[in-house]
Amino acid sequence: MFFHRQELQHKATPDRPDAVYARKLQEVLGGQYGEITVAMQYGFQSWNAHIPGKYRDLLYGIGAEEFGHVEMLATMIAQLLEKAPVGLVEGAVQNDPTVAAIIGGTDPQHAIVAGAGARPVDSNGNPWNAGYVTASGNLLADFTANANAEMQGRVQVARLYHMTDDRGVKDLLSFLLARDTMHQNQWLAAAQELRDEGVEELPVPSTFPISKEDRDVSYQYINFSDGEHASEGRWASGPTPDGKGEFTYVAEPPAGVPMPPPTQPDERFHGTTGKPSTLEKAKGAVKDALHKD
Amino acid sequence: MFFHRQELQHKATPDRPDAVYARKLQEVLGGQYGEITVAMQYGFQSWNAHIPGKYRDLLYGIGAEEFGHVEMLATMIAQLLEKAPVGLVEGAVQNDPTVAAIIGGTDPQHAIVAGAGARPVDSNGNPWNAGYVTASGNLLADFTANANAEMQGRVQVARLYHMTDDRGVKDLLSFLLARDTMHQNQWLAAAQELRDEGVEELPVPSTFPISKEDRDVSYQYINFSDGEHASEGRWASGPTPDGKGEFTYVAEPPAGVPMPPPTQPDERFHGTTGKPSTLEKAKGAVKDALHKD
Amino acid sequence: MFFHRQELQHKATPDRPDAVYARKLQEVLGGQYGEITVAMQYGFQSWNAHIPGKYRDLLYGIGAEEFGHVEMLATMIAQLLEKAPVGLVEGAVQNDPTVAAIIGGTDPQHAIVAGAGARPVDSNGNPWNAGYVTASGNLLADFTANANAEMQGRVQVARLYHMTDDRGVKDLLSFLLARDTMHQNQWLAAAQELRDEGVEELPVPSTFPISKEDRDVSYQYINFSDGEHASEGRWASGPTPDGKGEFTYVAEPPAGVPMPPPTQPDERFHGTTGKPSTLEKAKGAVKDALHKD
Amino acid sequence: MFFHRQELQHKATPDRPDAVYARKLQEVLGGQYGEITVAMQYGFQSWNAHIPGKYRDLLYGIGAEEFGHVEMLATMIAQLLEKAPVGLVEGAVQNDPTVAAIIGGTDPQHAIVAGAGARPVDSNGNPWNAGYVTASGNLLADFTANANAEMQGRVQVARLYHMTDDRGVKDLLSFLLARDTMHQNQWLAAAQELRDEGVEELPVPSTFPISKEDRDVSYQYINFSDGEHASEGRWASGPTPDGKGEFTYVAEPPAGVPMPPPTQPDERFHGTTGKPSTLEKAKGAVKDALHKD
Amino acid sequence: MFFHRQELQHKATPDRPDAVYARKLQEVLGGQYGEITVAMQYGFQSWNAHIPGKYRDLLYGIGAEEFGHVEMLATMIAQLLEKAPVGLVEGAVQNDPTVAAIIGGTDPQHAIVAGAGARPVDSNGNPWNAGYVTASGNLLADFTANANAEMQGRVQVARLYHMTDDRGVKDLLSFLLARDTMHQNQWLAAAQELRDEGVEELPVPSTFPISKEDRDVSYQYINFSDGEHASEGRWASGPTPDGKGEFTYVAEPPAGVPMPPPTQPDERFHGTTGKPSTLEKAKGAVKDALHKD
Amino acid sequence: MFFHRQELQHKATPDRPDAVYARKLQEVLGGQYGEITVAMQYGFQSWNAHIPGKYRDLLYGIGAEEFGHVEMLATMIAQLLEKAPVGLVEGAVQNDPTVAAIIGGTDPQHAIVAGAGARPVDSNGNPWNAGYVTASGNLLADFTANANAEMQGRVQVARLYHMTDDRGVKDLLSFLLARDTMHQNQWLAAAQELRDEGVEELPVPSTFPISKEDRDVSYQYINFSDGEHASEGRWASGPTPDGKGEFTYVAEPPAGVPMPPPTQPDERFHGTTGKPSTLEKAKGAVKDALHKD
Repeated sequence: MFFHRQELQHKATPDRPDAVYARKLQEVLGGQYGEITVAMQYGFQSWNAHIPGKYRDLLYGIGAEEFGHVEMLATMIAQLLEKAPVGLVEGAVQNDPTVAAIIGGTDPQHAIVAGAGARPVDSNGNPWNAGYVTASGNLLADFTANANAEMQGRVQVARLYHMTDDRGVKDLLSFLLARDTMHQNQWLAAAQELRDEGVEELPVPSTFPISKEDRDVSYQYINFSDGEHASEGRWASGPTPDGKGEFTYVAEPPAGVPMPPPTQPDERFHGTTGKPSTLEKAKGAVKDALHKD
Repeated sequence: MFFHRQELQHKATPDRPDAVYARKLQEVLGGQYGEITVAMQYGFQSWNAHIPGKYRDLLYGIGAEEFGHVEMLATMIAQLLEKAPVGLVEGAVQNDPTVAAIIGGTDPQHAIVAGAGARPVDSNGNPWNAGYVTASGNLLADFTANANAEMQGRVQVARLYHMTDDRGVKDLLSFLLARDTMHQNQWLAAAQELRDEGVEELPVPSTFPISKEDRDVSYQYINFSDGEHASEGRWASGPTPDGKGEFTYVAEPPAGVPMPPPTQPDERFHGTTGKPSTLEKAKGAVKDALHKD
Repeated sequence: MFFHRQELQHKATPDRPDAVYARKLQEVLGGQYGEITVAMQYGFQSWNAHIPGKYRDLLYGIGAEEFGHVEMLATMIAQLLEKAPVGLVEGAVQNDPTVAAIIGGTDPQHAIVAGAGARPVDSNGNPWNAGYVTASGNLLADFTANANAEMQGRVQVARLYHMTDDRGVKDLLSFLLARDTMHQNQWLAAAQELRDEGVEELPVPSTFPISKEDRDVSYQYINFSDGEHASEGRWASGPTPDGKGEFTYVAEPPAGVPMPPPTQPDERFHGTTGKPSTLEKAKGAVKDALHKD
Repeated sequence: MFFHRQELQHKATPDRPDAVYARKLQEVLGGQYGEITVAMQYGFQSWNAHIPGKYRDLLYGIGAEEFGHVEMLATMIAQLLEKAPVGLVEGAVQNDPTVAAIIGGTDPQHAIVAGAGARPVDSNGNPWNAGYVTASGNLLADFTANANAEMQGRVQVARLYHMTDDRGVKDLLSFLLARDTMHQNQWLAAAQELRDEGVEELPVPSTFPISKEDRDVSYQYINFSDGEHASEGRWASGPTPDGKGEFTYVAEPPAGVPMPPPTQPDERFHGTTGKPSTLEKAKGAVKDALHKD
Repeated sequence: MFFHRQELQHKATPDRPDAVYARKLQEVLGGQYGEITVAMQYGFQSWNAHIPGKYRDLLYGIGAEEFGHVEMLATMIAQLLEKAPVGLVEGAVQNDPTVAAIIGGTDPQHAIVAGAGARPVDSNGNPWNAGYVTASGNLLADFTANANAEMQGRVQVARLYHMTDDRGVKDLLSFLLARDTMHQNQWLAAAQELRDEGVEELPVPSTFPISKEDRDVSYQYINFSDGEHASEGRWASGPTPDGKGEFTYVAEPPAGVPMPPPTQPDERFHGTTGKPSTLEKAKGAVKDALHKD
Repeated sequence: MFFHRQELQHKATPDRPDAVYARKLQEVLGGQYGEITVAMQYGFQSWNAHIPGKYRDLLYGIGAEEFGHVEMLATMIAQLLEKAPVGLVEGAVQNDPTVAAIIGGTDPQHAIVAGAGARPVDSNGNPWNAGYVTASGNLLADFTANANAEMQGRVQVARLYHMTDDRGVKDLLSFLLARDTMHQNQWLAAAQELRDEGVEELPVPSTFPISKEDRDVSYQYINFSDGEHASEGRWASGPTPDGKGEFTYVAEPPAGVPMPPPTQPDERFHGTTGKPSTLEKAKGAVKDALHKD
């Protein structure tokens, strides 16, 4: 159960209206790595968790905080829009290039659809969608997803920080940056704890019997491009992070296997399968394909 | 520039047709964490990379391999569909519950749209979309995204491994599992190397001056749920992974700040702002809101 | 701010696993009119509300309840999936048509992506998206949207009620049906109260000066089809619900106006605008178009 | 069957080009509540209707009108774009901030994709999609959806009215506002008629036996937020609109039930289920969870 | 303006219910190449057309027919669903593998969302979206798009023809196949007429001065794969269809140009640009990159 | 298998930064007819091809080239963004209307999400999605789709050519225009070769027995609009392109057939089916419907 309190975790009031910035701020509300994403992601991870205790409590505890961040950003955006010129015609003012320029940078749906309100979309107006959410049931994979989400989120907030000089906005961003710092640290710590406790190991999923994978290629860096410097990284030699092998560097991909012959499905699918004479040629080509190198 | 060779990196031929499984296999071809995602993700990361050398070469080298994985899976799926019953009416056979059951589990677009061919969609027929791709320009964030993608991908392939007993299919999955093992290890190693070389640090982005974030809350676990076990994790006490602080545990979120008064945008947005008498009440309520605790 | 308590508003445990039903239940979790929609919709309406007091408190109060409904359904779905056969190969069992039939009706992503967990998608696996959300800032419009959402939601839950005989599931649905009954009544009552208090009137938005609309056609039913029975409804004669006019019935749409001549944009858009001889004909045709009836 | 006549229901010609406004106008053509939505919505409702006669005739009659509105708006948009500067390079002009400002506010796809033509998208360029359409087969629910659609539509047109001073555009909007007035009134009247005739009642669907819902909570307002004013609304006391109960106000949500223990699906899903020692702790936690309050 | 008549262009009644087939038939109603696509496509092409006369009349005339095809298919689908078992629990029957198998192949939203009605989606339940529509303003391009749409559509209907033995359904498909035959022929004829009349030529757009393209590579087939047979086609030698050149075959792509050095955007974007020591190496690498071959 | 070489097929460096143009250029990278579309389309067509030899080699050969075009455009876009003002606050500069105007025309996600990098989206920021891809298995249909894609693509590049005076950009566009010229010619030639060799004929699919379509309407132009000029086209009389018939012109659509009675599905779907008295009326209406004309 969720309970709401009519307070905000941190002050969220701008010094002045700025509809162009309101649009930009939508990114961290309703974008791929916005607050809706993490709130929903931690929610689904907690509901799908298979063990009670600290990991699930962590998910519940953070998830509810993130819904509060959604609220702070929505509240901020509505205020940024409150007295901003967002397309209403005001006689001569509208023809002022400065005003026109501002309007060009706003989200027209802020005005037309929401009447100067926040929207569950990103900075280009793409509606938030659940294709952004990750919740696999494997906590090591999912905590890595969470660490990434908090990193991407903090990168975006940091960029937004440089795009305004409104102290009220910067004050909120400063708070969000700190929380992202916490959450990055926390997910990395939690991922490490899973490994230290032996709950999960690398490679993920650690419960899959590693003997069933094709171990010959488990630690080969195979270079499918012509850059030579990839051989210099620690992914090209030395022990692997999973502690189970040694990286090797393969400068030239080994020869592959011939492609299987093209499929010939039922003729009632009306695919192009060729007339007899074509088929004759085709057979030759299949033979070529099969015997090539 | 990309060059194509009419070979596959690994054999990709099933022992027998299986249209139900073909549908499932679409997940790791065209799903959120399918091969199209990683191929495009590494591609965009490489094109947006800001430093030449080993990291970019790594992205180029792996990206091209992943396009080859897209091809292997597409080829496999087409063969799984080749002779499978996928909805064509065959007299009595169609009324056989076994056949009907099979058809119920297939993707109808495999038959109707692709004529027994592979499609750029997931196992529910959702078209692949670029909202799955991450390429921020910050390599520590992006390599973490990549590690996650390879973990999620390997989890999915491992699950698919248990859903078939076709040895041809399992052979290919065994190869893909191994490559995912490599790629997990590689991205984790690369992320570590960025930190060891001092190119990036935690928290990401490390170039943002940490003094500008609200350091009071940078390492607080604030518990917005009523589970008590989150205090037991290493994210609740001890040094933080970024090496810059100590985790603390806050069992009860501190009181927030009052919400700002509701916005009152231009009346030409025709939002509900209340008639005079309503406004009178409203003002009282605003006052309440502002003075609450 | 949102706070989470590790309890459910109502018991949400099925009597037995049922992966086919789990897929169906996704509709009222992550579909167009599922619980995610109403939770987010009431959230954005509250954040964008322009007057404090009872209407906004109502939105806050219900919104948080709906997030709890999201949680109940996710929890139920995870349990329906817990021990269900969802595609893992179990020797002979898999070839049993009954088992195959079950698998055909499941959501493959429940198994492959979520490892037997709930997902933020509908019963066809479409990810939830924010294009489902309505929050215009006009409360009479939005409360009507909410009444509709609760009606559609209750229709769907009622249908789902007939699709299972699991008493645990039915018990939860029975609870949800009752809450939908409440919420339908509540939004209709709230919409009426807005009108009774004179905060809003019909037509919405009531603050737009009605004299500026083309009053000649404000109450005409114009019949663009050949059914004659539309004239029998109360929308075809008598006083209008907004209390400002009388319905009239227009059996035949009046003649329209000629279409404007086709546009001739800048030739650098390379649209087909015709060569001289064509243009000659074209001009005649424009003339025809302009003078037709 | 649909028949087309090369006329418009109302004049749709602007006084002058305005590509910025053309983009805005896309909202009521191809947005969530644009004309495509209502045209398709009334279409599908009519094709799925279960009783012939006045209700279905109404749907057919209005649906065809709305397709004509799609056409009027598309025609208007093409003319607004006809001679507008939409990105073509014109020497010095392009560097004029006024021109640049205009271009900043246009939809680049109007120029690049449609060559100064209208598009089936909203004002942010999101393609129209059928997730906007409602057609449940229950007419009381669907007519409420329709009333909402016409309200949202009229709110948007009213906002657009204030965003231009082009008399040709305003003349068309004035016509559309009036038709939206009619359609709001009409759907409310039709919904009332369904109830007056006893075809449908509240709560929707009225054919579901109300005794099967959990009547204890059918008329309770349960306050999941801390605002106190919701108790003042008519949804908190007095008779309910469905005529079947009395509203009550529950200031504090009653205690919930313990969450069910986390699921433990088949290990071949490779979810994180914990190693023995973890499981030991986990069992304790389950016990705690079950016995909490 | 559009007018509706309560008739169908062709009989659309199945011999018996078939919910599995109803789902499949959704493809040609609401899929990428379904009737909604062509109806909307011809509509937008006509509204954006720049010359009056036969081409625009053609678009109007066919567009309205296609809306009638949408209606026929929706009507057919509703009837296929009318008495079909679509998930309602009927005691023992539900456990019959035959019934279960049928249900597995149905679209659950047909039952839950539409109450046994048609939906604006494809056979996998993806909502129709306007990203399927093409309307560029260039008629030769657009008529080619239309020819393709009718080809793809006819291929899909032909496949569906083999997936049923219901004579009522086959009778409708037989009609649709014939209309697709007409429409294929018609668009190819219209495309040819544009060329014969000199209104458009190849390459499209013919109004772009061909001298401004890089004529050296305008007719080269450059082989980026290792298949040798592409040299055998008429696209590898001989005169080109546009009548302006001769095809040549280039077996090996010529050497490309060095990639430009990686970008170094403003540091406030917090991309990874490398610390001094890294930069030192980087510069060397840039030099390498620039001087490579 | 795909191999990457760190070179570009053609120089892709702008003379100067231009973030507004970078946004526009996204259209031909990640839009409906951008390079990602054709790369993926030719890829899936090749993997689904049913005959080896020249047609499949052609698909492979071109597909790999198109992935290289994706890379060239991404590289170009990153450079256009490199030093451009994209929203970072620079004191007074930001208030300069010229700068503001520029920012209004940029894609905010270029800055916030990608840190001045290219993205897999179109010029309105819509993520690329696989709903743009066509791969039916029927080569005549698919080559027509390909010809259309290259035509639409060249139209878009031609428009973009007029939207910049940057010589570096124009030089790349000049190259792309030439390649589109080649590819248009090539697909038209390949489509013709399929017909000349008798591999496929018109109408597509030619393997469906034409006697099973309703031949009465296979070559009728039926005019569902009131324009008279459609009778003047070669689609209204004379031999049909498929060589199997003669076009005829039908000025007035023949009378249709009565609609079937509305469906009456199971009452547990809770659709509106009417109370007895309503049903009585309904039956009369059904009778009317059935006997109309």
